[in-house]
Amino acid sequence: MSGEIEPNPSLNNNSSNTVKNGPIPAKPCTRQASGYPYGLVQPLLTDQYQVTMAYAYWKSDRWRANAVFDFFFHKNTFDGEFTIFAGLSECLKFLQNFQFSDSDIEYLKSTLPASTEEGFFEYLRSLDCSQMEVYAIPEGSVVFPRIPLIRLEGPLPMLQLVETPILTLINYASLVTTNAARFRLAAGRDKVLLEFGLRRAQGPDGGLSASRYCYMGGFNGTSNVLAGKLFGIPITGTHAHSFVMSFGGLEDLKVRMLQPADSSKPPVDFVEICLRCREKICRVINVLQEQTNEGELAAFIAYASSFPTGFLALLDTYEVLKSGVANFCAVSLALNELGFRAKGVRIDSGDLAYLSLYVRQIFKKVADEFSIPWFEKLMIVASNDINEETLLSLNQQGHGIDAYGIGTHLVTCQRQPNLGGVCKLVQINGVSRIKLSQDVSKVTIPGRKVVYRLFNSDGHALIDLMQQSEEEPPKPLERVLCRHPFEESKRAYVKAGRVELLHKLFMKNGEICQTLPTLEEAKKRVQESLESLRHDHKRALNPTPYKVSVSNALYHFLHDLWLANAPIGELS
Amino acid sequence: MSGEIEPNPSLNNNSSNTVKNGPIPAKPCTRQASGYPYGLVQPLLTDQYQVTMAYAYWKSDRWRANAVFDFFFHKNTFDGEFTIFAGLSECLKFLQNFQFSDSDIEYLKSTLPASTEEGFFEYLRSLDCSQMEVYAIPEGSVVFPRIPLIRLEGPLPMLQLVETPILTLINYASLVTTNAARFRLAAGRDKVLLEFGLRRAQGPDGGLSASRYCYMGGFNGTSNVLAGKLFGIPITGTHAHSFVMSFGGLEDLKVRMLQPADSSKPPVDFVEICLRCREKICRVINVLQEQTNEGELAAFIAYASSFPTGFLALLDTYEVLKSGVANFCAVSLALNELGFRAKGVRIDSGDLAYLSLYVRQIFKKVADEFSIPWFEKLMIVASNDINEETLLSLNQQGHGIDAYGIGTHLVTCQRQPNLGGVCKLVQINGVSRIKLSQDVSKVTIPGRKVVYRLFNSDGHALIDLMQQSEEEPPKPLERVLCRHPFEESKRAYVKAGRVELLHKLFMKNGEICQTLPTLEEAKKRVQESLESLRHDHKRALNPTPYKVSVSNALYHFLHDLWLANAPIGELS
Repeated sequence: MSGEIEPNPSLNNNSSNTVKNGPIPAKPCTRQASGYPYGLVQPLLTDQYQVTMAYAYWKSDRWRANAVFDFFFHKNTFDGEFTIFAGLSECLKFLQNFQFSDSDIEYLKSTLPASTEEGFFEYLRSLDCSQMEVYAIPEGSVVFPRIPLIRLEGPLPMLQLVETPILTLINYASLVTTNAARFRLAAGRDKVLLEFGLRRAQGPDGGLSASRYCYMGGFNGTSNVLAGKLFGIPITGTHAHSFVMSFGGLEDLKVRMLQPADSSKPPVDFVEICLRCREKICRVINVLQEQTNEGELAAFIAYASSFPTGFLALLDTYEVLKSGVANFCAVSLALNELGFRAKGVRIDSGDLAYLSLYVRQIFKKVADEFSIPWFEKLMIVASNDINEETLLSLNQQGHGIDAYGIGTHLVTCQRQPNLGGVCKLVQINGVSRIKLSQDVSKVTIPGRKVVYRLFNSDGHALIDLMQQSEEEPPKPLERVLCRHPFEESKRAYVKAGRVELLHKLFMKNGEICQTLPTLEEAKKRVQESLESLRHDHKRALNPTPYKVSVSNALYHFLHDLWLANAPIGELS
Repeated sequence: MSGEIEPNPSLNNNSSNTVKNGPIPAKPCTRQASGYPYGLVQPLLTDQYQVTMAYAYWKSDRWRANAVFDFFFHKNTFDGEFTIFAGLSECLKFLQNFQFSDSDIEYLKSTLPASTEEGFFEYLRSLDCSQMEVYAIPEGSVVFPRIPLIRLEGPLPMLQLVETPILTLINYASLVTTNAARFRLAAGRDKVLLEFGLRRAQGPDGGLSASRYCYMGGFNGTSNVLAGKLFGIPITGTHAHSFVMSFGGLEDLKVRMLQPADSSKPPVDFVEICLRCREKICRVINVLQEQTNEGELAAFIAYASSFPTGFLALLDTYEVLKSGVANFCAVSLALNELGFRAKGVRIDSGDLAYLSLYVRQIFKKVADEFSIPWFEKLMIVASNDINEETLLSLNQQGHGIDAYGIGTHLVTCQRQPNLGGVCKLVQINGVSRIKLSQDVSKVTIPGRKVVYRLFNSDGHALIDLMQQSEEEPPKPLERVLCRHPFEESKRAYVKAGRVELLHKLFMKNGEICQTLPTLEEAKKRVQESLESLRHDHKRALNPTPYKVSVSNALYHFLHDLWLANAPIGELS
């Protein structure tokens, strides 16, 4: 039932049959319900060249070759100096359940040359992750460029086949978690951050992934109901402009009576109380009653009657200061007479700093005038096209906002919509491999590596150190030579207060061999991991780069292999 | 089996139970297999406020109100002057199958206040699209700002509930189709465009949607195997750098023999032939044999042996001009001796204009020297971080490229990662509504509107004209007054050669009442629709805006309603 989706016949019928490599009719799949998140994370969610390479490995009798692949990225995102690693659990579940279905094989046959040998398809059918080992940094950790976040070890063709799905699962997850963590840093700890991005996300599961990983990165909730259902994320939402616009005036209110909080009291005419309260409010806050929009008042009354304990109103359908805030205060005052407390307001346009301060001032006036102290503390939610810079600028200006609803910039990662994580071969049958590039920063660090994070005595991370796997681990309180991987003169002796081995073995013999963190645990890890990072690495403007280093032995190994693979050119 | 995904128990178990609004155990769903593309497009893929609004409508006895919502966008993307409309078929399939499942209802109950009346959940259970009508412009059409692409008519709460999924399905689909169409315009008709974006896409279905809609927008194929299987898109791919790096030298070649094309001939030692050919090639193209990388040669031999009729090699693992091209030519020459034709090369780094011209020159030299005319025409694929500007710049410089593999910029729409389409209430119970905004360009055009596209006599689109639905349609060869919706002085008389009504009724009584286009048909429509647009609207630099207008009657109606809703302010 869950986790597995076969191609949809109705979709296939809509595709022309004249296309080469055309669709194959759907067949029931015998694969077990799996950890695949939404059904479409399956072995075929890969690039075709992984399949053709697998055939070439198989055909040239190289399919038993044992390889090591590193997953890493070249550069931190968003002009920052840190990244949060996310998506690992989904990768592991995908790997654990990896198996081609009959219809997958049938489809692949139709796409490969007729000369492709039958034995290859038998081979594909037999593939699973039972010969794979996965080492990784725990999900939710702060990570840095060039450090392998995942090390995959196993048969070469198998690693190729899973490369693309792993990149797909990690790249966006890490990107959007990092973005959310940056929004959290910018907003400060005490603000409520709500993810409202579903309608702007890149497709349905773009939206679902965004909700999940924004929560992990530090958001408090989402508007996405399905994400609430699937992942247990708190969901949130009130009403839209359309709700307000759908009421023309008080004549649209068919239900006027409301039961007070004290259930022993009889229902009262709530509309009448609201109208009376509006008179009072308009006088106190100096707004002309005839300028307040009556359709808006009707909408607020209807909404408050439906959610008397959770009344939060959108103020800017017509005019925040001339209409919205007066109508809101009127209805909230009426609710108060019936023993209910309103929750707050949302402002979705205009100068958020100015409006929020002004509205807060009005709340204070009403609180004082009517002796309702909590009125001053009503929640103000802001939600208009907010990005990291808006948050920083609002902090600088001063504002009265308690919560932010953030969509487009958060989920599309507008500032940099991809992490650019890559998966590179670093070892084959025990022999290290290097990938050269004209761009030095893209040269890969060869071999099977072990990574340590060195902390200073006050618990802050100092430097990450990559070593060859056979080297002795660095010891606390001993001097270790840490070198920049490419720049000869950049090196330092580091004496660490504490040394942490970054990778854990997450999968052995095709089975997940660690307890995977819950979403809440991963979310907690993000904050803890960020706390171990010095402030200057995290600041928005000109952050200090965190140092990523190699051991002296790895430095020389890297450079020797580099020279051996780059013969001296001849200019003439 | 297909089309429906229930929440995955293993995911739920990973979420902490301490979260408010926590997960509900999965239940088998009785819903029929549906048109939902990947299972997760379901009624709960919506914003929570749609649900709370639905309750407020229900509770205030307003759920029968009949509404009209327009889906439109405010501004074209990518600094362009056109957009391609895509995603309609998926929306219609979603609507046709709209129904809350038992577990959906159970989850919603857990998220709404305890005071929420039971009758509301009965109401939700009864909801479907049987009372909805959907008018829309056909998928694949060129469209413009402010024009309603979809007009939804039906019960107000139902329209609210489907608003978010529709936005999610249309926004990214239209964005990425438009992006693909722009890449096609920039590359020219005769180039092959391949979508390689899966690993950079925003999540698994971001990748799948990208493959589908890039094909619709004008691409020739994708690397995404699952997209091939599900949608019948041609898939493509050869090998990666890792394949080349996995071979250390000729000793890694365990299989040396290859069967010539003529099956009556005996298998030959292909490695020996390749080595012989390398000698000849190095002499002809003036490359030092000892500088060519032997691991690369081994990899090319292994790949060519596996795909003798489809040999396409990646040249830049070590050095394109000193190693890659020599090794490729050697193996291709050897294939030629056996009666096979190589396909071509891919270059994934460096100066693509220079390298492709240089490689083409070498191909010509080999063709002449060895009298193999087709060698000159071998395919050159380029694939390094290409965007629209790269294509335009390559055209300007001159190059030898036949095909482009494009990933990141295409699928993430780096230049502008969201379309910002919105769904706005324009009429309720027959009464028009207007949404005002400080930003004039965001004021909505009220009421139920009919849209015509007016073409000139040579078949090019001249202007789009919105009218109130009760107005007489414009007639060909008659003068029609077309007005800018907001700027009083901008108006023109237009005499059209042909008039086209843009919307069709796609859904009536909850049933799709048009034959939906196949992917191939929609793809064709994109190109035809673009052809009807004048060149100057489509050019990359400073394109001419296409005119979107309203009738004189609609102009006055809009402005009267605007003034009625915006009372004169008082300054003091």
